[in-house]
Amino acid sequence: MEKKITDLISENKIQDIRNELLEMNIVDIANVLEEVEKTQLVMIFRILPKDIAAGVFAYIPAELQQHLVESITDKEIKIIIDELFLDDAVDFIEEMPASIVKRVLKNTNESLRTQINQLLNYPEHSAGSIMTVEYVDLKKEMTVNEAIKHIKKSGVDKETIYTSYVIDSNRRLEGVVSIRKLILSDETTKINDILHDDVISVKTTDDQENIAHLFKKYDLSTMPVVDNENRLVGIITVDDIVDIIDQENTEDIQKMAAMEPSDEEYLKTGVFKLAKHRIMWLLILMLSATFTGGIIKRFEDVLQSVVVLTAFIPMLMDTGGNAGSQSSTLIIRGMALGEISMRDVFKVFWKELRVSIVVGIILALINFLRIYYLEGVGALVSITVCLTLFLTVLLAKVVGGLLPILAKSLKLDPAIMASPLITTIVDAFSLIIYFEMARVFLGV
Amino acid sequence: MEKKITDLISENKIQDIRNELLEMNIVDIANVLEEVEKTQLVMIFRILPKDIAAGVFAYIPAELQQHLVESITDKEIKIIIDELFLDDAVDFIEEMPASIVKRVLKNTNESLRTQINQLLNYPEHSAGSIMTVEYVDLKKEMTVNEAIKHIKKSGVDKETIYTSYVIDSNRRLEGVVSIRKLILSDETTKINDILHDDVISVKTTDDQENIAHLFKKYDLSTMPVVDNENRLVGIITVDDIVDIIDQENTEDIQKMAAMEPSDEEYLKTGVFKLAKHRIMWLLILMLSATFTGGIIKRFEDVLQSVVVLTAFIPMLMDTGGNAGSQSSTLIIRGMALGEISMRDVFKVFWKELRVSIVVGIILALINFLRIYYLEGVGALVSITVCLTLFLTVLLAKVVGGLLPILAKSLKLDPAIMASPLITTIVDAFSLIIYFEMARVFLGV
Repeated sequence: MEKKITDLISENKIQDIRNELLEMNIVDIANVLEEVEKTQLVMIFRILPKDIAAGVFAYIPAELQQHLVESITDKEIKIIIDELFLDDAVDFIEEMPASIVKRVLKNTNESLRTQINQLLNYPEHSAGSIMTVEYVDLKKEMTVNEAIKHIKKSGVDKETIYTSYVIDSNRRLEGVVSIRKLILSDETTKINDILHDDVISVKTTDDQENIAHLFKKYDLSTMPVVDNENRLVGIITVDDIVDIIDQENTEDIQKMAAMEPSDEEYLKTGVFKLAKHRIMWLLILMLSATFTGGIIKRFEDVLQSVVVLTAFIPMLMDTGGNAGSQSSTLIIRGMALGEISMRDVFKVFWKELRVSIVVGIILALINFLRIYYLEGVGALVSITVCLTLFLTVLLAKVVGGLLPILAKSLKLDPAIMASPLITTIVDAFSLIIYFEMARVFLGV
Repeated sequence: MEKKITDLISENKIQDIRNELLEMNIVDIANVLEEVEKTQLVMIFRILPKDIAAGVFAYIPAELQQHLVESITDKEIKIIIDELFLDDAVDFIEEMPASIVKRVLKNTNESLRTQINQLLNYPEHSAGSIMTVEYVDLKKEMTVNEAIKHIKKSGVDKETIYTSYVIDSNRRLEGVVSIRKLILSDETTKINDILHDDVISVKTTDDQENIAHLFKKYDLSTMPVVDNENRLVGIITVDDIVDIIDQENTEDIQKMAAMEPSDEEYLKTGVFKLAKHRIMWLLILMLSATFTGGIIKRFEDVLQSVVVLTAFIPMLMDTGGNAGSQSSTLIIRGMALGEISMRDVFKVFWKELRVSIVVGIILALINFLRIYYLEGVGALVSITVCLTLFLTVLLAKVVGGLLPILAKSLKLDPAIMASPLITTIVDAFSLIIYFEMARVFLGV
């Protein structure tokens, strides 16, 4: 499919290109535009009907949007902005440099400009910033027939007509009616009799992560956004929530790997920006590892008298780190999904303690077989190593399980208590255990 | 709210409980049922109207479902199963022990039983296993008016009426029509003239991860599922996709922390099962760390002549591991989201090389200031440590960036090339670099 269209483009067969594009989904057309030369981009964009052009525009990356807007006339800009859903228009404007924003806003009519400016004012990641103001509103005195007529008249430009919102004369939200209910009800029924008044709504300032939780909890497809006086100001649709869930997951995963979170695509992010997101945590962790070095220095005499002990340090540190990250990862994820809360702290402690005993015994035994029987390490050294291994796993799993909960109770993000920090903490403790064991068993 | 209802329950005021519950969302009712004593569970469940009872039943955990089914009559079971959406009924049956499944199936009529059995046969995580068969189908000869009448007649039991599917006499999928299009079109228009025939569909055997990708790419709310002859057999709705996205993310995160993935809730998983999911990778990584120990043994002479070198081993290993996991995490996530593919291997290499040079220089310089000026470590040892640090970061980031892509090209899951494995690999190389540097600079 895309092969054929690129052939037509290189042969410049405009009518054929148009016919081919009109058969395609707007997301696929956007993909085609990403592949073509920038000189052809404007040509292809111009042959699309205006509603499709606006749809495609919402799906191309910001740099292509900018290039397009810089290449077309003021009149064409006006047409696109008018056709775009308001939330897509706002997303686009947020990404553009000031000069383009100015030109775009100059070319929109005043009421639209006011709406755009209002949406631009909401803080990033708030309900206000992700909502759209294009929804269908009904009054409860309407009949089903009147409501359907109202939807027919006003519904063409609305982002969704699947849910209508019932408001009073002060725009205060009174309930919702699904199109399903309207279609399946008698024509003369009053909206008042079929509206659902136990509405789950959010405030404009609520955070998108909590909104995504509500969507998941109640299996919603849309959600109304209200201001402090419970007046309806917008709606959020589930297709935006799907993106937000991925975005929140990406942020958590990045934090868990000791990076500052960013929702920019890797390949589109510059080298210095990538470096900036990584350096702070690397520095913090590098300096923390100094403690571990200090512990080794303090026990230098132990290492000098039994040199073979040094060879097991990496294995002990790595296994402790891995055992701890497994636990912290499960707890962090469980908390992110709302499955584990702070009051479960004792359940987590008790579970991790038992899991770590099972896992620790298996690891210590297998390690003993390997170093004592296969490598011929002395019995006392083998016991020292394996007992340390067991205690390290125990400590790592309990610490790994509890620290994310502790972080949450201190109002910190649990995701920072992941692999890197847990590893650093466990490293220090495991070395202390190791050397103290050595003193006891080897008498050094 | 929940406080009040629990008070009413403890006072056993049945009529008040019922009134209170009828005001609540089914998800919240399900939460109430999770909190009450098992003896009260059945009582409360029985006072709910049957459609609400079925809705609530779909939201309570499997153990409560089982307890309920064991406590109610055959006739009540039949009512619930009839009222449940088919995909919820199948989810429920999949979780039950054989004796209950037998009793449930015995109490459903034959056509429903056949449908349930068919759905149970699809492999886990396939389109067939997550789809529902309750959709609205239309013929293209119908008028809009006839179509809306058909929806009114058959739509009550359907999972969604927002999208209708147009099929021919052999049930082959010919197109889709949204309820929006129906409502906004003239009553006498033929379905044929408004149907959208460029339908994005999946096969029954397609994997849920790819299906979620399509939903996200095309911002879909429903998707038809067809068999090998393109006959419509079911639909998938976006609310199920939201859960699947979380499930796939959880799996990736668990794999990245060196665990066998599991979609069971942490607090509901037994100790031995948790241990089983963790032990294999811990063993593999523990045994791999043996190589690192071997390297230290090989260079024992170096460590014995310059004892202070040992103290920097943890810092070098940890920083290398952290630097490598940052890179591998970004690449694994980028591949999971479809932003990075195998053909980007050189872009990734070039980007990671430059990022690692920036990050490596900063870390090495700060470390030099700290150990040479603050701790008074000798110049040559300081240079050895800092040069090793720089090279380790370089290597860690390049290896961390490339191994996930290599894994993918070998048809392995990139997520296994995460923090734990990268750390083990980088540890070994960083120690070799360290000791070779020491030989060069310190002449040992």
